[in-house]
Amino acid sequence: MKTLAAQVITPEDLLKHWQGHRALTRRVIELFPEKDFFEFSIGGMRPFAKLVDELLAIAAPALKGIVNRDIQPYTEASEKLILKAQYLEKWDEATDEINRYWEQLSIEDFNETFNLFGQYEFPIIHNILYFIDNEVHHRGQAYVYLRALNIEPPFFWER
Amino acid sequence: MKTLAAQVITPEDLLKHWQGHRALTRRVIELFPEKDFFEFSIGGMRPFAKLVDELLAIAAPALKGIVNRDIQPYTEASEKLILKAQYLEKWDEATDEINRYWEQLSIEDFNETFNLFGQYEFPIIHNILYFIDNEVHHRGQAYVYLRALNIEPPFFWER
Repeated sequence: MKTLAAQVITPEDLLKHWQGHRALTRRVIELFPEKDFFEFSIGGMRPFAKLVDELLAIAAPALKGIVNRDIQPYTEASEKLILKAQYLEKWDEATDEINRYWEQLSIEDFNETFNLFGQYEFPIIHNILYFIDNEVHHRGQAYVYLRALNIEPPFFWER
Repeated sequence: MKTLAAQVITPEDLLKHWQGHRALTRRVIELFPEKDFFEFSIGGMRPFAKLVDELLAIAAPALKGIVNRDIQPYTEASEKLILKAQYLEKWDEATDEINRYWEQLSIEDFNETFNLFGQYEFPIIHNILYFIDNEVHHRGQAYVYLRALNIEPPFFWER
């Protein structure tokens, strides 16, 4: 549908914002040395690969669930990825899926409630803001891992 | 002004979202041991107090600049805070200021361009999303500091 009224943010712009963050996270994945991506950790936290498992289990599957109003439990991919290159491939597949599902959202949808993963019953806009915030949060943690590994992370405002 | 058209997100809801994040960041500040708040660091990064200096220099001053369309350079407070309690006090003052300035924003304002700190010329909605994302990013880093200090951070979804 076409929006004629002024919007705080348009759906197109919110997608661009999300995908900008996802492009930055992709660069952070690329910057990790292969071994450290899977193994490096601080304070008993998950290595970045495990955090990315979570991000992949949320973004495209969650948006698909929202668009189809199909409540599925949260599950991380059963197929175990063992190379960074496989993660990057999955990341790019998710990028395309997100773009595709996003086209099916109308302005009105954002205010409807959806019970994400059968656990988080919130307006869809808040589910989506959660996906973005959760990614920024975990990527912030990955920045510390990179610094601890003596690797310069990308500028935060690069998207 | 009153909004009658459907919104992806309303100004009221975006403020609540931001202040929810700010409430979580406040809890993270509270959880740091006094000394570690000012001194603990990983990989040469800023201690959390320095990151909070940045967050305080952005949130309320930036929103004030936006509302008044008054371009001021970015500056961290000249007054040096030496206690966590002083940070929490400044944090709460900023919370009130943000609420006050926010009331002066109309839906149309979010799409207008503002040259934040004389450096970042973007639509106001993107300036505001940047404030939120930047806080989530740095707070994510503080979560790693807490884990490295063997302190359990709050749940990310607590707001």
